[in-house]
Amino acid sequence: MSKSPITSPLSDADKAAVGAVLQATLVDLIDLSLIAKQAHWNVVGQNFRSAHLQLDELVTTARTYVDQVAERAAALGVSPNGKAKTVAESSGVPEFPDNWLKVDDVVQAIVATLAALIQRLRARVDETDKTDLVTQDLLIEITKQLEEAHWMWQAQQA
Amino acid sequence: MSKSPITSPLSDADKAAVGAVLQATLVDLIDLSLIAKQAHWNVVGQNFRSAHLQLDELVTTARTYVDQVAERAAALGVSPNGKAKTVAESSGVPEFPDNWLKVDDVVQAIVATLAALIQRLRARVDETDKTDLVTQDLLIEITKQLEEAHWMWQAQQA
Amino acid sequence: MSKSPITSPLSDADKAAVGAVLQATLVDLIDLSLIAKQAHWNVVGQNFRSAHLQLDELVTTARTYVDQVAERAAALGVSPNGKAKTVAESSGVPEFPDNWLKVDDVVQAIVATLAALIQRLRARVDETDKTDLVTQDLLIEITKQLEEAHWMWQAQQA
Amino acid sequence: MSKSPITSPLSDADKAAVGAVLQATLVDLIDLSLIAKQAHWNVVGQNFRSAHLQLDELVTTARTYVDQVAERAAALGVSPNGKAKTVAESSGVPEFPDNWLKVDDVVQAIVATLAALIQRLRARVDETDKTDLVTQDLLIEITKQLEEAHWMWQAQQA
Amino acid sequence: MSKSPITSPLSDADKAAVGAVLQATLVDLIDLSLIAKQAHWNVVGQNFRSAHLQLDELVTTARTYVDQVAERAAALGVSPNGKAKTVAESSGVPEFPDNWLKVDDVVQAIVATLAALIQRLRARVDETDKTDLVTQDLLIEITKQLEEAHWMWQAQQA
Amino acid sequence: MSKSPITSPLSDADKAAVGAVLQATLVDLIDLSLIAKQAHWNVVGQNFRSAHLQLDELVTTARTYVDQVAERAAALGVSPNGKAKTVAESSGVPEFPDNWLKVDDVVQAIVATLAALIQRLRARVDETDKTDLVTQDLLIEITKQLEEAHWMWQAQQA
Amino acid sequence: MSKSPITSPLSDADKAAVGAVLQATLVDLIDLSLIAKQAHWNVVGQNFRSAHLQLDELVTTARTYVDQVAERAAALGVSPNGKAKTVAESSGVPEFPDNWLKVDDVVQAIVATLAALIQRLRARVDETDKTDLVTQDLLIEITKQLEEAHWMWQAQQA
Amino acid sequence: MSKSPITSPLSDADKAAVGAVLQATLVDLIDLSLIAKQAHWNVVGQNFRSAHLQLDELVTTARTYVDQVAERAAALGVSPNGKAKTVAESSGVPEFPDNWLKVDDVVQAIVATLAALIQRLRARVDETDKTDLVTQDLLIEITKQLEEAHWMWQAQQA
Amino acid sequence: MSKSPITSPLSDADKAAVGAVLQATLVDLIDLSLIAKQAHWNVVGQNFRSAHLQLDELVTTARTYVDQVAERAAALGVSPNGKAKTVAESSGVPEFPDNWLKVDDVVQAIVATLAALIQRLRARVDETDKTDLVTQDLLIEITKQLEEAHWMWQAQQA
Amino acid sequence: MSKSPITSPLSDADKAAVGAVLQATLVDLIDLSLIAKQAHWNVVGQNFRSAHLQLDELVTTARTYVDQVAERAAALGVSPNGKAKTVAESSGVPEFPDNWLKVDDVVQAIVATLAALIQRLRARVDETDKTDLVTQDLLIEITKQLEEAHWMWQAQQA
Amino acid sequence: MSKSPITSPLSDADKAAVGAVLQATLVDLIDLSLIAKQAHWNVVGQNFRSAHLQLDELVTTARTYVDQVAERAAALGVSPNGKAKTVAESSGVPEFPDNWLKVDDVVQAIVATLAALIQRLRARVDETDKTDLVTQDLLIEITKQLEEAHWMWQAQQA
Amino acid sequence: MSKSPITSPLSDADKAAVGAVLQATLVDLIDLSLIAKQAHWNVVGQNFRSAHLQLDELVTTARTYVDQVAERAAALGVSPNGKAKTVAESSGVPEFPDNWLKVDDVVQAIVATLAALIQRLRARVDETDKTDLVTQDLLIEITKQLEEAHWMWQAQQA
Repeated sequence: MSKSPITSPLSDADKAAVGAVLQATLVDLIDLSLIAKQAHWNVVGQNFRSAHLQLDELVTTARTYVDQVAERAAALGVSPNGKAKTVAESSGVPEFPDNWLKVDDVVQAIVATLAALIQRLRARVDETDKTDLVTQDLLIEITKQLEEAHWMWQAQQA
Repeated sequence: MSKSPITSPLSDADKAAVGAVLQATLVDLIDLSLIAKQAHWNVVGQNFRSAHLQLDELVTTARTYVDQVAERAAALGVSPNGKAKTVAESSGVPEFPDNWLKVDDVVQAIVATLAALIQRLRARVDETDKTDLVTQDLLIEITKQLEEAHWMWQAQQA
Repeated sequence: MSKSPITSPLSDADKAAVGAVLQATLVDLIDLSLIAKQAHWNVVGQNFRSAHLQLDELVTTARTYVDQVAERAAALGVSPNGKAKTVAESSGVPEFPDNWLKVDDVVQAIVATLAALIQRLRARVDETDKTDLVTQDLLIEITKQLEEAHWMWQAQQA
Repeated sequence: MSKSPITSPLSDADKAAVGAVLQATLVDLIDLSLIAKQAHWNVVGQNFRSAHLQLDELVTTARTYVDQVAERAAALGVSPNGKAKTVAESSGVPEFPDNWLKVDDVVQAIVATLAALIQRLRARVDETDKTDLVTQDLLIEITKQLEEAHWMWQAQQA
Repeated sequence: MSKSPITSPLSDADKAAVGAVLQATLVDLIDLSLIAKQAHWNVVGQNFRSAHLQLDELVTTARTYVDQVAERAAALGVSPNGKAKTVAESSGVPEFPDNWLKVDDVVQAIVATLAALIQRLRARVDETDKTDLVTQDLLIEITKQLEEAHWMWQAQQA
Repeated sequence: MSKSPITSPLSDADKAAVGAVLQATLVDLIDLSLIAKQAHWNVVGQNFRSAHLQLDELVTTARTYVDQVAERAAALGVSPNGKAKTVAESSGVPEFPDNWLKVDDVVQAIVATLAALIQRLRARVDETDKTDLVTQDLLIEITKQLEEAHWMWQAQQA
Repeated sequence: MSKSPITSPLSDADKAAVGAVLQATLVDLIDLSLIAKQAHWNVVGQNFRSAHLQLDELVTTARTYVDQVAERAAALGVSPNGKAKTVAESSGVPEFPDNWLKVDDVVQAIVATLAALIQRLRARVDETDKTDLVTQDLLIEITKQLEEAHWMWQAQQA
Repeated sequence: MSKSPITSPLSDADKAAVGAVLQATLVDLIDLSLIAKQAHWNVVGQNFRSAHLQLDELVTTARTYVDQVAERAAALGVSPNGKAKTVAESSGVPEFPDNWLKVDDVVQAIVATLAALIQRLRARVDETDKTDLVTQDLLIEITKQLEEAHWMWQAQQA
Repeated sequence: MSKSPITSPLSDADKAAVGAVLQATLVDLIDLSLIAKQAHWNVVGQNFRSAHLQLDELVTTARTYVDQVAERAAALGVSPNGKAKTVAESSGVPEFPDNWLKVDDVVQAIVATLAALIQRLRARVDETDKTDLVTQDLLIEITKQLEEAHWMWQAQQA
Repeated sequence: MSKSPITSPLSDADKAAVGAVLQATLVDLIDLSLIAKQAHWNVVGQNFRSAHLQLDELVTTARTYVDQVAERAAALGVSPNGKAKTVAESSGVPEFPDNWLKVDDVVQAIVATLAALIQRLRARVDETDKTDLVTQDLLIEITKQLEEAHWMWQAQQA
Repeated sequence: MSKSPITSPLSDADKAAVGAVLQATLVDLIDLSLIAKQAHWNVVGQNFRSAHLQLDELVTTARTYVDQVAERAAALGVSPNGKAKTVAESSGVPEFPDNWLKVDDVVQAIVATLAALIQRLRARVDETDKTDLVTQDLLIEITKQLEEAHWMWQAQQA
Repeated sequence: MSKSPITSPLSDADKAAVGAVLQATLVDLIDLSLIAKQAHWNVVGQNFRSAHLQLDELVTTARTYVDQVAERAAALGVSPNGKAKTVAESSGVPEFPDNWLKVDDVVQAIVATLAALIQRLRARVDETDKTDLVTQDLLIEITKQLEEAHWMWQAQQA
């Protein structure tokens, strides 16, 4: 069914613009949730337990916003796409290493991942200022959470 | 780090065999969790709410076993791989349609997905009978849950 | 007591403008809560139970924001008015049919009701941009929730 | 749909009599819930917080029985009507003042409101003694709760 | 032990009359709980999940009153009998079909079952008016719950 | 303050009659709660623990209805009196022995206490049939609970 | 509907064999739940309370597995039958005495009942070893729980 | 049974002294619990609700220590006596007025009651310093709680 | 360590501006939490209990935002400073009186404190409009909560 | 590491004395927890269930204080030793019989065990009066709990 | 209001002495709560997360006793003073460094802070032995908690 | 009582074999719980808190299976023996060092302890394949949990 069965409160142009922003954010966040789980299982080293637990909190954060972003798209009449293939092809998150990883390497990779995501989100906050304040509000909240997580992961590198 | 920092209670041969089984199951279950979420967001039609809720229960089931399967692999000294690319390339789950979907089409797709997964799981239960009873026990439990879900989704087609 | 015993952080003009917006929203939301309960009791037909439950969730959403909107008005020194007569006379929600109703008719009426409310809310979000950002933030949140509900009710018509 | 899709365990005459009693009670209780909320928002003065909280408990009581009364009507095959216009036109609850109100005035108004409601309910308990003991039981319970509330509000006037 | 070790607050005649009423109600309600479970497992068709869940709520209601009725009998010095054979031989509930059942057939069977039970209960409410008001009160409560359930199942046939 | 600050929904004659019934019930139930605690502390013998716990459940039951009975009196404009001296002078509960007590003696004393209380309550249920159905309803509920407790204590004597 | 709307992951022969095992277990467990309730209500004597409570735990255990066994059957495409008549005719549980029962007699009857059930279950664990490991796993778990209960009831006879 | 079935860890002299202290404290606290409930039901006036709630907290405090004091006596081989007659005859708590009471009068009476109790408790803390440190510890804790309650009731008189 | 170990998503100028706003807000809110506790302990007079409880809710509100503001600063690479000396020297909250305080004086002081805080917060909402929307969102939320509290404290002065 | 990495707030002499007291108490309590579990599993006879449950409460009590005692030692710079060999060699608890045990024999053994433990604890309360009031306070609390348990076990022998 | 509206159970001399002890303890504990929060926000380095969480537990401990100490003072008729200026001027806690801090430096500072607090508290335990046993009991409990925390922080330096 | 009062569902030979397996497992697991607590109290060093918490989770795991293993033995008619002396003499767990221990040494000791236990458990899983599938199932579950714990402790050595 390619014609949307859900009407949109936005004009066609705004709907297209906001839809693209939400779809890109959805893919980024699904990828973040998969990467954080991957790290959760493969981390090893002296601070194992602490990192293992903290990574699961990041998974929870990512999954929470995955759902809110997708349902916001649906509410605007835009079909969200979060399938594995879509994520593998269009995610903006940096490549994450395979296999077992030392705690320090995990910290470094997660800090880089979050930095990339935050930069992309801040651009989207600007983009939605003229098109949909409701979507902007959601993106601001995600940015806030990821910046807080970014601090907590960076704090371990000091 | 390609050499495993975790020792295995199994022989090398058994570890390789069981590791392959767990990795394949991990990929299948991650894919199931992504597909069920995809359906959760894109389903439309008269029974929308009921299907929308039931799909989220399937997501929860899939995620629970994703974690147990990956951690069982780690406990055996096998690094689990659950990244988006790996899932996109090696999942045994049938292709799921893009875009908005009618309830009946969702039911049909989920029934087919579960049937494929159960068949693959039953083969793996046999494979692990001689290699690792602990892993077999976990696979039996997953099979049981998916067969119960299969019944409940099928019951709607009657 | 017609002179307000509560001082306002806003100028007199802003207070009057924001007060009118909040009073209008209050009446709309009380009416929504009464209509959703009315439908909750009078719905009949094959999907009865699902609609019956979903309508009660809508009641809960409406009541939550009824309270927040009224208390926001009070916090600004504006006396809120949510009495039956006021609602009957000034609500902007479309007329809802009497008597028992088929599920499809309920869905159609609720979709229309929400569409009308969202349109009115989006206008108020714009109005408050220059007068009170705190109130605007609350209206954005209500809009988001009603647009999500709108999607879920529309999805059943597909 | 004006012909009731729900059969009644009562004779036609009893159903009509009990239905009228329930409809009148429903309207009274919805009005009570709206008035108690109105007072909850508009009360001011030295005992503000205590009255503010106690009024919300009254709202909760009223809403609980609103639902039970309406669903009892439905169970007897009588379509309940709780829309704003119906309440504004047929409620037996005394007029409640607009605008901010001193605590003492609120106490006085609530005591009077409850006294009126109790009197009407006791008459209905008698009316249902020959027609439907199940409905009578529900009305007795509501009477008990409102008489207890009446004592607690009166106690503040001593 | 055929002589009752529990004394009764009732006269012998009243005890015999009330005891018969409670024993008959006990059997009816156990049968209802078994039938609702039977339907819970065997229902199939488009509204499967909703019916499946609603049937389990009916099981819970039935089981709650099974216990209260039996313990009321015991409190009056009457030994309750809820064994399978007793239920099979003396239940007043209509025969329920074997095998898989479509949702519509289930709804029809449950509506008929509840109608039969309510009719029998209303007669017993009358019978106990002169013998034991405590038992009557319990029967009124059960009647209320079953009539509410009856409405909800009937509502799906509209 | 001897003139009641609480108005009564009953006529003066009914208020006096119902007030006397409630005051007598209040005293009986407070005495029951003190006796059950006394037994809770002084019971000894082979079944100590089971009796010790069961007695505390009886305390909880008694205290629950002490409060409801007293507040019902207050709601009718009758000042309840539950002071130690009042209880010592006017309770209708049989004398309870001092000092340590064997389990069997406790069971016997509690069975006798409950039998006496139930007999008095049943008379009061009859008395209130013409004066206040709300109070009657409460007395029926108390009777039911005490008759159930009576069975459970008697069952230990068999 | 006699043809199963649910496909089975098993061959026809295995499905028939496993289906028979599950149906027999279902009937046994429903009967156990009814017998344990019967005893819960009719037990009398010095240890009444302890036995009364322990019997209700047995009811809970039985009901838990009743549901799992029936749903396992459904998941395999076998319609479960748990109606009163079926239980009365095909249960393998020994006859349970009518009327009030002394604690010792209850203990003896429950010990015998559990012994019979365990023997039947152990045979079924063997039967399912070649047909369905998932079902076997469930039967092993039930056996474990009933053997633990058996110990606890036997321990009281020492 | 007048000879204690419970041995005491104390010498006979210490046991007698500590037993007397505990018995006196038990009676005082039961009386406090009855008086606080009496006030809870009979208080009227402008601050009714606040006093009504605060009195129930005092009941809870009193009941908690009633149990601990009685069980401490039992643990020392001293049979505690908390019957209505004992309380009426030996309590050291000042007489509490009958009938409805204004809030101020209640506050005054409770402040006086607590002052008397605290004075008696402080003397008992001294008495137990040489006889039983465990009992002393319990009395210190009760003193602390009552002195805190004393402050909170006094604070309302300022 | 004076060089920040946490990188900032903001430019240096924006970081300095937003950092100053957050630090000032942090100090104000810690001071509010200390003042509310001070009042919680020192309030006396007729409405003591109500004020005592309401002040603790204000402490909870203040502490919640203290933490969020400080962690937002850290997330931006700005070290927050909430030590006693810093609060004593830089808080913008008006001087709060020492010693015991009558309820009316507490209400007056809290109303003044909140008015001062709200005025300062509204200015900061404006300041952050061009520098960091994420921080602005947090400040809007705090303003909303404090304005609601302000209404509730003012309402008692009417 | 034999030199303590934890400094002590006590002098060396006091630390040695208090450390010995805590170590001895630790061993006694671990032994109590193992013995109570041993009895929990091996008890048989008519009161089985009651004793079985009561023994588990004793396990919980013992384990709670095991942890508090060991952590108190650590806080004083004394390394606690709770290994099986240490317990087997230095516990002051009387020998507990092997194999299945009748309820009466269990009661007798537990009463004797608790009597021995209480005697030892009371001596330690005296010893710590001059060395560490904090430790004394903990020992007083343990004594109180064990004396209460002692009463409850003795009460069954009466 | 400088004259205390709360009477004291202590003599004037004892009240002054105990009041000074409580006021000093109050200030120390408020300062501890602010310092622990300061560290919670500013800590960085390899064990960041673990320290971040452990610091928040210390905040909770400190806040719990802040309230109990202040309310004990009030109960004795002494007005507690916990304002920022008072804390800044009279706290006995060592100066805590500004700005970001490495984990090791935080551990060292917290260990020193707790050592200083424990030393001061132990002196106060001695001081209150002759003046108020109730206050002494509270100080002993605080000492116990801080010594346990001290061990846990020191354990990280080994 | 050396003759078992509990009958066994197994033959004498199987009962002896399975009994020996369960007794050995019981002793191993009790020892594990004591060792993990010992480490919980004596661990020191940089990662103290994380190790301290993780050790307590291991205690919980061990205690859970201690109970299940002992109760399985009892259910088979085998008296379990978990006394300190038995554990000290027959445990297969390696010697654990006395006194304070650095985190790394704790990790190493726990990894070795778990490795030894897992090896012994896997042998027992094989032994029970022909004797008791129910026991085997329990041992498989324990093995799974300990292998997962083994991974998590090993991961810290990488």
